Formats: sequence, structure tokens, C-alpha cells
Amino acid sequence: MISKLLPRGINFFDLFERQVGFAVEAARFFEQIVSRGHIDGNTLSRIQEIEHSGDEAAHAIIDQLNKTFITPFDREDIYNLTKQLDDVIDMINTIISRMKIYHITEVNMNLVEFAKVIEESVNAVARAIGGMRNRKDAKLVTAACIEIHRLENLGDTMRDRVLEDLFSKTTDPILVMKWKDIFQDAETVLDVCEDVAHVVDSILVKQA
Amino acid sequence: MISKLLPRGINFFDLFERQVGFAVEAARFFEQIVSRGHIDGNTLSRIQEIEHSGDEAAHAIIDQLNKTFITPFDREDIYNLTKQLDDVIDMINTIISRMKIYHITEVNMNLVEFAKVIEESVNAVARAIGGMRNRKDAKLVTAACIEIHRLENLGDTMRDRVLEDLFSKTTDPILVMKWKDIFQDAETVLDVCEDVAHVVDSILVKQA
Amino acid sequence: MISKLLPRGINFFDLFERQVGFAVEAARFFEQIVSRGHIDGNTLSRIQEIEHSGDEAAHAIIDQLNKTFITPFDREDIYNLTKQLDDVIDMINTIISRMKIYHITEVNMNLVEFAKVIEESVNAVARAIGGMRNRKDAKLVTAACIEIHRLENLGDTMRDRVLEDLFSKTTDPILVMKWKDIFQDAETVLDVCEDVAHVVDSILVKQA
Repeated sequence: MISKLLPRGINFFDLFERQVGFAVEAARFFEQIVSRGHIDGNTLSRIQEIEHSGDEAAHAIIDQLNKTFITPFDREDIYNLTKQLDDVIDMINTIISRMKIYHITEVNMNLVEFAKVIEESVNAVARAIGGMRNRKDAKLVTAACIEIHRLENLGDTMRDRVLEDLFSKTTDPILVMKWKDIFQDAETVLDVCEDVAHVVDSILVKQA
Repeated sequence: MISKLLPRGINFFDLFERQVGFAVEAARFFEQIVSRGHIDGNTLSRIQEIEHSGDEAAHAIIDQLNKTFITPFDREDIYNLTKQLDDVIDMINTIISRMKIYHITEVNMNLVEFAKVIEESVNAVARAIGGMRNRKDAKLVTAACIEIHRLENLGDTMRDRVLEDLFSKTTDPILVMKWKDIFQDAETVLDVCEDVAHVVDSILVKQA
Repeated sequence: MISKLLPRGINFFDLFERQVGFAVEAARFFEQIVSRGHIDGNTLSRIQEIEHSGDEAAHAIIDQLNKTFITPFDREDIYNLTKQLDDVIDMINTIISRMKIYHITEVNMNLVEFAKVIEESVNAVARAIGGMRNRKDAKLVTAACIEIHRLENLGDTMRDRVLEDLFSKTTDPILVMKWKDIFQDAETVLDVCEDVAHVVDSILVKQA
């Protein structure tokens, strides 16, 4: 019982770093895939492995939350943070599955560019999470959050430009549907990274 | 005032069983409709009746929550549970409306199969809710939650297979759009059932 | 420190009225645009200005929330309310961007009708927010919330009718896709207004 009352903050930071590590891995893998433009059974099983490890890391955090009485920051923020990191990985997995389902085999340079922005954003998420451990790193965390917001805005602009192009130049409606979905999904990854930044921001403010 | 302080857990369990009963009715009705492939004014008014009863059951829970000081489990979990059960019924209603709007008249065997999985999942949700009343039923609840997760995974695989087929074989883009929406909605019902299972799981863990 | 403990409710009401004012402005601007059917660079920069002012109003509320110990109603309700008012403005901005991206230049009478319903609903949201300040205005608030629910139902019916028309009469699949997205977005504005009404309703009940 006493152990339940002891602050065990350090564990949460370790667990979050572990979870965000799988998001970084998923984003890097996604960038490699779209640059190659080829998806096969191995690709799918590799991303599903990463997603599975990410799920386990998320469950470990929820288990710890349910067992811990005093947490390093609001219980709800811990829950939201782990849920959103999980969403980042899920969303990357969703795009890859969709590319497989839609039989996408060509390299799309706009998607390659998007994948690089996603990788940058997930790396910034990892820096933000990593910096939460020490108050002296608050500036690093804030800088990472600002970077995540910038990349989300950039993604909005990129998606709008791609869709405008797609709708005015592509004559095959099935192709329009396919790429519209894929770029929408890609932009959603950046939205979810921004959700993480919002939670991290609000945790910093409460602790200030 | 004193009555406000008294535990009234029993009421919440009764109210939740009532609400989930309408979800079970909606799922059964949906399975009948898609097996018959015919939607008319009567079909729509019947599902709207069920949805309306479900809404009333949800409102009764929120009213009770606002009037009750001590609740059998976290207020937020009660709120989420009733909201998600409502979403299950709403989503089934959405698919039926969509089939009417899209003038779907044929029997689609993939959708029949999906409707059976939805019915199984909603039945498992009902077992999970029913078992929350007594701690000795914890194993039943856990088994029902595991079944809900299994059916959600099955639904993902089914939807992916249907979409892959649809995009590679159907040449009419309007038809692709219609069925894509319908199967996406169908999969969403299973997602919402899984959300219920997550809340039920976390209530069990907190009470353990 | 003492100032942190003082009730500062009045500020929150002022801040919410300021934020909802930008939603009213966005809805009025949207109605003007769709009646004119012409979107250019000026249109986009005007709606982005409104959205930016709305964002600042939302940030002011969150800042105030983080600095205030005693709030006029639940912290979570304050957070949800400001988030949802922000979503109203964002969603209107999204439709206007989409009309630009999809190169919509014609006046669509169904969309004009929809824009009028959106304007009515956002005006009702402003009345609900304005009435929260004084308990003697509770009836006004309730009436506004009922009006918001009515308009959301009306919007559902309108969207279903428009989609049924679109799918049965339009032969160009790309056009079907474009208008489907725009009317779906329009209906979502009414959904978000309804989310605001739900939060306002629940605040009233808790204070009764």
C-alpha cells in the first residue's frame, strides 16, 4: 500500500520515452517506404510489429497509472499523452495499410515530402517528451512544441496544394479518391503530433 | 439532501442495461435489414424509434449522474460509457440512413457478414455491461471485452479486404464511393464497441 | 497568491463573449461568401484574420484558466467550451478553404440555405453564452440551446436530402466528391454548435 503512495514519476518518463521511440521508428520506416514506393507483405508485418510494440508501451503506462497514487503530472494528461502517442503510430500504420489496399506502387514526390515533414514532427515530439523530465529543459520542450505547430501549419498548406492539384489535374475519379485519402491521413499524423504538443504545453504551464 | 449522498449504484446498472438493450435491438434490426436488402419508410421510422428510446435511456443516466453525489464508479466513466453506447446506436442509424440516401437495394453478402459481426460485438457489449453489477462476474466481463477486441480486429481485416476488392474491381466511381462509406461506417460501429470495452476494462482495473 | 484564490468569474464570461463574437463574425462572413459564390485571395485572408482573432481569444481563456484557482464553473467545462467555440470557427474556415481548393465558383442555393441555418445556430450559441452570466437568464439560455438542437436536426435532414439528390442526379463523380465534402463540413458546423449546447446545458444543471 505504501508503495502506491510513493511518487514514481521517473517511471512515467521512462515509459513515455519508450513509447515515443516506437513513434519515431514508425515515422522513419514510413519515410523509407514512400521513398521506395513499394509495399509488400514484409512491409506490412514490419509496421505491425512496431505498432504492436507501441501498444505494449501504451498498456504499460495505463497499468502504471492505475497502480500509482501520486503521479508526476495530472492523471488525465498522462492518459491523453499515451493515447495520442498511440494515435501517431496507428495513423502511420493506417496510411501504409491504405497504400497496400489501394495498390499504390508508384513513388509520389509530394508524399515523400510529406513523409519527411512527418518524420521531423515526430522527432520534435520525442524531444518534447524527453525534455519533460527536467525543469531545466523547459526551453527545449517549448522550442520542440513550437516546431510541431509550425510543421502542422506547413502540412495544412502542403495538403491543400496537393488536393488543389489533384482535383484540377487528375481525370480518373478513383485515383482522386485514393490520393485524397492518403494525403488526408498524412495531414492527420501532423494534427495528432500537435495534440501531443498541446498536452505537453499545458503540463508545462501548470508546473510553472 | 441526504438522498443525494446515498449510494445509488443499483440504479446506474439498471439504467445501463436498459440503454445497452436498445443497442442490441438496433444491431439485430440492422442485420435483418441488410439480409433483406430493402429499405423503406417503415425501416427508417423503426430505427429512429429505437434511436429515440436509446436517447431517452442516455438522458436518464446523465440526469441521474447530475443528481447523484456518490456513484458506483467514476463520474467521467459513467458519462463516457453512456455517450459511447449512444454512439453505437447512432452509428447503426447512420448506416441505415446512408443506405436509403444512396438508394442501396441489392443484398451485399459482405455487408451481411459485417452485420453479423456487429451483432456479435454488441451482444458482447451487453454481456460486459450486465456483468459489471457483481464483482463475481469479473471473469465474464473480461471475456466479453476480449471478444469485443477480437471482433474489432476481424472487422478491420474484413473492411480492408472489401475495400481492396472494391477499388480493384468496381469501375463505377460513384458505386465505389457509396460502398466505401457504408463499410467504413460498419467498421466504426466495431470501433465504438471497442471504446466501450476500454472504459469497462479500466473500471474493472480501478475496482480491483 | 491571494489573487489566485479570488473568484474571477466575470472575466471568463467576458472572454467567452469575446470568443463567440468571432464565431458570429465567421458565420456571417460565410453566408455572404456563399451567396456571392466567389472566393479569392481577399476572402481567404479575411476568414484567416477572423480565425486568428478567435485563436487569440481561446488562448486568453486557457491562460486565464491556468492562472485561476476558483472558476465560475468546472475547469473541464471551461476548457471544452473554449475548444468547441474554436472548432466552430475552424470548421467555417475549413469549408471556405475547401471551396477555394475545389475551385467552386457557382452559387449553390442549397449551400446558401445551409449557411443561413449555420448563421442562426451560431447566433443562438452567442445568446446561450451571453445568458450564462446571470442566473435570471437561465430560460433564455435553455431556449437558445433548444433552438441549436432544432437547427442541428434541420441540418441533418437538409444534408441527407442534398446528398440523395447529388448521388442520384450528378453524373460527374469528381463533382459528387466535392459537394459531398462541402455539405458534410457544413453539417459538422451544426454538430459542433450542438456540442456547445450540451456543455452549456450541463453547466446549467450542475448550478441548478
